[in-house]
Amino acid sequence: MPKHVVVIGAVALGPKAACRFKRLDPEAHVTMIDQASRISYGGCGIPYYVSGEVSNIESLQATPYNVVRDPEFFRINKDVEALVETRAHAIDRAAHTVEIENLRTGERRTLKYDKLVLALGSKANRPPVEGMDLAGVTPVTNLDEAEFVQHAISAGEVSKAVIVGGGFIGLEMAVSLADMWGIDTTVVELADQIMPGFTSKSLSQMLRHDLEKNDVVVHTGEKVVRLEGENGKVARVITDKRTLDADLVILAAGVSPNTQLARDAGLELDPRGAIIVDTRMRTSDPDIFAGGDCVTIPNLVTGKPGFFPLGSMANRQGRVIGTNLADGDATFPGAVGSWAVKLFEGSASGAGLTVEGALREGYDAVNVHVEQFDRAHFYPEKTIMTLQLVVDRPTRRVLGIQGFSTLGDALTARINAVATMLASKPTVEDISNAEVVYSPPFASAMDIVNVAGNVADNVLAGRCRLVGTEEFVQLWEGRKDADICFVDTRLAANAVPLVEKYGDEWINIPEEELAARIDEIPRDKTVMLVCNTGLRSFESQLILDRLGLTNTKSVAGGMVAIHKIGGDI
Amino acid sequence: MPKHVVVIGAVALGPKAACRFKRLDPEAHVTMIDQASRISYGGCGIPYYVSGEVSNIESLQATPYNVVRDPEFFRINKDVEALVETRAHAIDRAAHTVEIENLRTGERRTLKYDKLVLALGSKANRPPVEGMDLAGVTPVTNLDEAEFVQHAISAGEVSKAVIVGGGFIGLEMAVSLADMWGIDTTVVELADQIMPGFTSKSLSQMLRHDLEKNDVVVHTGEKVVRLEGENGKVARVITDKRTLDADLVILAAGVSPNTQLARDAGLELDPRGAIIVDTRMRTSDPDIFAGGDCVTIPNLVTGKPGFFPLGSMANRQGRVIGTNLADGDATFPGAVGSWAVKLFEGSASGAGLTVEGALREGYDAVNVHVEQFDRAHFYPEKTIMTLQLVVDRPTRRVLGIQGFSTLGDALTARINAVATMLASKPTVEDISNAEVVYSPPFASAMDIVNVAGNVADNVLAGRCRLVGTEEFVQLWEGRKDADICFVDTRLAANAVPLVEKYGDEWINIPEEELAARIDEIPRDKTVMLVCNTGLRSFESQLILDRLGLTNTKSVAGGMVAIHKIGGDI
Repeated sequence: MPKHVVVIGAVALGPKAACRFKRLDPEAHVTMIDQASRISYGGCGIPYYVSGEVSNIESLQATPYNVVRDPEFFRINKDVEALVETRAHAIDRAAHTVEIENLRTGERRTLKYDKLVLALGSKANRPPVEGMDLAGVTPVTNLDEAEFVQHAISAGEVSKAVIVGGGFIGLEMAVSLADMWGIDTTVVELADQIMPGFTSKSLSQMLRHDLEKNDVVVHTGEKVVRLEGENGKVARVITDKRTLDADLVILAAGVSPNTQLARDAGLELDPRGAIIVDTRMRTSDPDIFAGGDCVTIPNLVTGKPGFFPLGSMANRQGRVIGTNLADGDATFPGAVGSWAVKLFEGSASGAGLTVEGALREGYDAVNVHVEQFDRAHFYPEKTIMTLQLVVDRPTRRVLGIQGFSTLGDALTARINAVATMLASKPTVEDISNAEVVYSPPFASAMDIVNVAGNVADNVLAGRCRLVGTEEFVQLWEGRKDADICFVDTRLAANAVPLVEKYGDEWINIPEEELAARIDEIPRDKTVMLVCNTGLRSFESQLILDRLGLTNTKSVAGGMVAIHKIGGDI
Repeated sequence: MPKHVVVIGAVALGPKAACRFKRLDPEAHVTMIDQASRISYGGCGIPYYVSGEVSNIESLQATPYNVVRDPEFFRINKDVEALVETRAHAIDRAAHTVEIENLRTGERRTLKYDKLVLALGSKANRPPVEGMDLAGVTPVTNLDEAEFVQHAISAGEVSKAVIVGGGFIGLEMAVSLADMWGIDTTVVELADQIMPGFTSKSLSQMLRHDLEKNDVVVHTGEKVVRLEGENGKVARVITDKRTLDADLVILAAGVSPNTQLARDAGLELDPRGAIIVDTRMRTSDPDIFAGGDCVTIPNLVTGKPGFFPLGSMANRQGRVIGTNLADGDATFPGAVGSWAVKLFEGSASGAGLTVEGALREGYDAVNVHVEQFDRAHFYPEKTIMTLQLVVDRPTRRVLGIQGFSTLGDALTARINAVATMLASKPTVEDISNAEVVYSPPFASAMDIVNVAGNVADNVLAGRCRLVGTEEFVQLWEGRKDADICFVDTRLAANAVPLVEKYGDEWINIPEEELAARIDEIPRDKTVMLVCNTGLRSFESQLILDRLGLTNTKSVAGGMVAIHKIGGDI
């Protein structure tokens, strides 16, 4: 008898699992159900639909060749029965049945399954404060919410928006609202930085500066305490620090697994509420698979359970489930957490742990910051890319990499190179030797990825003694009270503006003249060496070490990094 | 007593090794010698200097901050003594000396070394034919040759150029001459494809089409038999098939290790003449290191000795040598061979073996061809990227990846992801799960890298039965004599032009209508399923399989690939 598979959830993982399974077992019967009327869409595209870059919402629900993936599509092209506007109320694991309700008619019935797939997804976190039910307050996790926002904006009803949460969705929505619609947009983030958990605090400053340059207001370390409305519609966001006018509030404070159905069925969940699955994506019930935003999978960097609510995870896991439904033997070992986000001029991308995350995990972690051209420095079109490499000192193991650049594809070329290595516990040496492609229009002969490994090696050996960009800015601002001497090691022409502006406080001794002019450097102070990107200041540190002047620090990333975080110097 | 290190060769590896060593052992004395007057330059930048994109040749010899790396630079900034216009005549390993000659004065002397570094580089291969010594015939391996070519062109002396060799340098020079200077440019390649050894023959057709669309003439499978001159200057290139007028002939037929000095010193060489080194880059003499274009290192895909004459290799190996000179313990395990090249509209990149190379190595290799958008298909700015994955059937091991795209950085983002995995023998499943970054502006939720793994899985399982692009074009051209039925599975609107042009020879049955219209497909013929990129034709194959019509082939890459190779249909 043909196998009957029931799939609950039809956005990303569900359809992928269903279609892959049908390819392997054409005789089987697959029923896929979803509460919504529209299924199989690219939810990650919502910010681009709201902005208008994606001109109609059907595109998010269409194949690359503009065929809308509706129940008819699944029936004809995939031989999969898709029941929309249908809710699953309960799973009876003993009986192998799911109780479902047609939300249009109210009709209830019981579906029998041989194997069940839970593609339950996630739900937006809602801060537990007053006013969340006011009109104009919404997450953007599904197409109905996306349309609500887009229609409100295009009808001219939104002049001030507040976004609660400074993660991916929050920042993408901020760009969408401010860039394309010119809406006064404010991001409020509870953590002390935007993109917490994904970028270091120092890198997050570059993202923040990119947003602020483009008139997005960012408040970090700030808590929403109440929303206030007028006539049932939101009018103000009250934080612990201020009151923000708002006629639209986007909830982007992360997501949580949507697993009540699994909990009621007695499946094993982790403390966060995510369904526990094995590497074959089977739940604690061998006849039930689960994947996507509703499960926990191993973090391959820490070895601990992780949570990776990302469309790409759902798609890849869906295929694994489809294979295993057909008695195949596919596995999904876990994830290192790779990501990318496009802002205004800049884009950020990363994989693995941030330095703060690594320290929290108990690693003796150090963050190595590199600024370098993203291709041969003599090649005309290029930009200076930022990379940060997170390294465990005692083992020299690389735990993560993050970066920021105006040329996003070139950045992802470096992040991808390391992301696919991370699970195999690469060392600093592996990064120094990483065989990224080389040709002057695409990379340097000693590429920035390799340089990040090299600098890490020098830092671990104590040859390169760095000070971080933010710390430098603080030291500079407090220079009147500190015994610090600032030495600009660039060529004179580059240093002139600062020398003219700051006089004795900003000494210029080009690297080339250090040996001859070493007496100009006071021996009783900490010497802060600065150049354009951190290369000449490191070389200067080595020269001074050789000459016995060792109380020096090299400013990681130099003036380029200082400007990228908006440092006022 | 401070160590004395002598470095022979000061282009890429030599300076890197010297400077790294000096950073670790500041007290040591380093003497670096080179025959040329200009040292430490980016030879890979020569095509961009010839084209004019790099406006002056000093840029190739400068740091990112425009400091020219001349002997003075090395003395002051690096405490390295650089002797230019100095030739090494002989190494006396027993005495630990090198006999050198100052080419300006003719003065000879003997340098004593504790450790010696051979950075001898490579020399351009010269076809053993008459006329090679004519004026206007030159390789472009050093700055003098680059200047000769650039000056001849900018003086208006070149209207027709012939490039001997269709590898990286040959193609980069072709673009340089034709694009920026409008010179009639012809590439003559001995092999039956351009980029032999780096791309499959089918992928090379895409590169060739890119060149031909931009008026570069390409002749493959053609041998230069003689150069003819007038008044001592080249005038014609005679091949085994034709005569080509030429006032400039660029020799780009590969390079060979420049190792006479090492051979005379009795160091172990491989049959190609490359110096044999261990993973610490030591030659058969433990006091002599070597690296860069003059050595053989393991090919980490085949496990056999390899030859990777690339600037990035030289730089990374130079650092390893520098560390080991200072009694460190750095290793360079080998290379998988990653590369990139920018042509006119398109760029190509790859790593590991081509399908032809893998077959030659004895693998039961299959080439999987994928065409897919390089980012979310709903995202406005995107292009269709080509990827080819080379897989060993019995072990499912991935041996190589190559691709072609108009967005080169996005292509390298995929190649880098796989390049850094290749040495660890990834399987098809590892590629399906490869954790490349995802966000709609940068990738698809099921990214093209993962899709390449998925398609390979389907091909190995026999579910996807592909025919290659070139084979399809041949079958189409011979359609009058063959029992083949061509079925276009795209939506009707897309198929109309071909249906109108070819009538009965080109049947359009959209995937959605296949089940209903299956009787229109003859059962006694091979059915060639075609769509836009190969996705719908694969799905159509599955639908027809389900319906019992199994004598089908799906055209890999579909019409997009056909157009990319310039297929006339």
